[in-house]
Amino acid sequence: MKQAKVRLFVEQPLGKGQTVLMDRDQANYLFNVMRMGAGDLVALFNGRDGEFTAEVVEAGKRKGVLLCQRQTKPLQLPPDLWLCFAPIKKARTDFIVEKAAEMGAAVIQPMQTAFTNSERIRRDRLQAHAVEATEQCGGTYVPELRELERLDKLLTIWPEDRQIMFCDEALVGAKEVLGEVGGDKWAIFIGPEGGFSEAERAKLRDMGHAVSLGPRILRADTAAVAALTIWQQHLGDWG
Amino acid sequence: MKQAKVRLFVEQPLGKGQTVLMDRDQANYLFNVMRMGAGDLVALFNGRDGEFTAEVVEAGKRKGVLLCQRQTKPLQLPPDLWLCFAPIKKARTDFIVEKAAEMGAAVIQPMQTAFTNSERIRRDRLQAHAVEATEQCGGTYVPELRELERLDKLLTIWPEDRQIMFCDEALVGAKEVLGEVGGDKWAIFIGPEGGFSEAERAKLRDMGHAVSLGPRILRADTAAVAALTIWQQHLGDWG
Repeated sequence: MKQAKVRLFVEQPLGKGQTVLMDRDQANYLFNVMRMGAGDLVALFNGRDGEFTAEVVEAGKRKGVLLCQRQTKPLQLPPDLWLCFAPIKKARTDFIVEKAAEMGAAVIQPMQTAFTNSERIRRDRLQAHAVEATEQCGGTYVPELRELERLDKLLTIWPEDRQIMFCDEALVGAKEVLGEVGGDKWAIFIGPEGGFSEAERAKLRDMGHAVSLGPRILRADTAAVAALTIWQQHLGDWG
Repeated sequence: MKQAKVRLFVEQPLGKGQTVLMDRDQANYLFNVMRMGAGDLVALFNGRDGEFTAEVVEAGKRKGVLLCQRQTKPLQLPPDLWLCFAPIKKARTDFIVEKAAEMGAAVIQPMQTAFTNSERIRRDRLQAHAVEATEQCGGTYVPELRELERLDKLLTIWPEDRQIMFCDEALVGAKEVLGEVGGDKWAIFIGPEGGFSEAERAKLRDMGHAVSLGPRILRADTAAVAALTIWQQHLGDWG
């Protein structure tokens, strides 16, 4: 049986017998870059209906038509986990977004901290990056990119029922057992390269659960993957 | 008290009262790029003697002299953990080496697998990358970069007393409890983007302990950090 070699995120609804129109960019990618044509198979997902195999029925220069054949994966929602991080250099920020999508975060919340340099982010660019990472990793859900928010404001309006796990560079050796805390709504906080300020750390200690990421100082993107691993192992869908 | 703002790896022995000569590249970095001068402090480590604070006593265009004042960190050896990985695109390979240094691997072993594209690596370049990552992360030990080796050969001469942890993409849900296996010599095996071949996987299953990295497919660099996290949490120095 032929296999879909390309995985593509689309906005349209998916279902058996549903036709899906390719826009100019998608047509260019499928039919020029990937040299696909009528009869070839593509895996489609839209973040809501799972994954479908679709056959190319029309391949044009600027448009195309695909026909959904069968569902190949049900929608698999990630755990209700937010990753809150302080944007750093562009490439590292891109990496954190990619990693969050691969590791299964539901929401990505960029935040400004006392030691964050970045005043603004390109939310649409980062969202596109999350889509691309989801296409790659076989996920059926694309994490939602939130607008940049100040850490102090985030914590002021923080929902009471969402637990906070935060990575404390000052903590050596000790770690709370996440399993004992429980709860199904969580957020992980990752500080910027310079770490959290003393005031921020005190506030996070007060509101959240500190974990140690070992005796070496991790870059923010490494820390994001390590923290997501710890959480997914204890409370998430890696069980 | 003045603090060292720069951390530098050197080859020479370190000890209280020891003078350390800067070569051309180091002098350029300290005195031109970082604009340091006599009286400024630098943190030095050599992978053997821990970390020392040293004062600049001579700052020249092509050379310089530093004087070790006091030890600021003892040598902290990482656990006896090897990271065996299949080199991929240059940037991702660099990332894996950086991550291995940050996360505390002792040995980094690049390997050729059935689905590895890379025929060769630049060992010296990757070793320099590990040095840089160690300078950044505050570690006092630089992981050793081994020469590229074929996976089948590696497994043929595998030391009997070294346990293997390997990340099995086909494994869903189950995971062995590493703590029950125990042992203090370990190696983590990370496959290439295309995964291990069926034969390789069978061999690794036979010789090692499989762990799951969740339901999504992780890129090799993400998988390396996730696997190192799991190992460090259960058996390493994050305890």
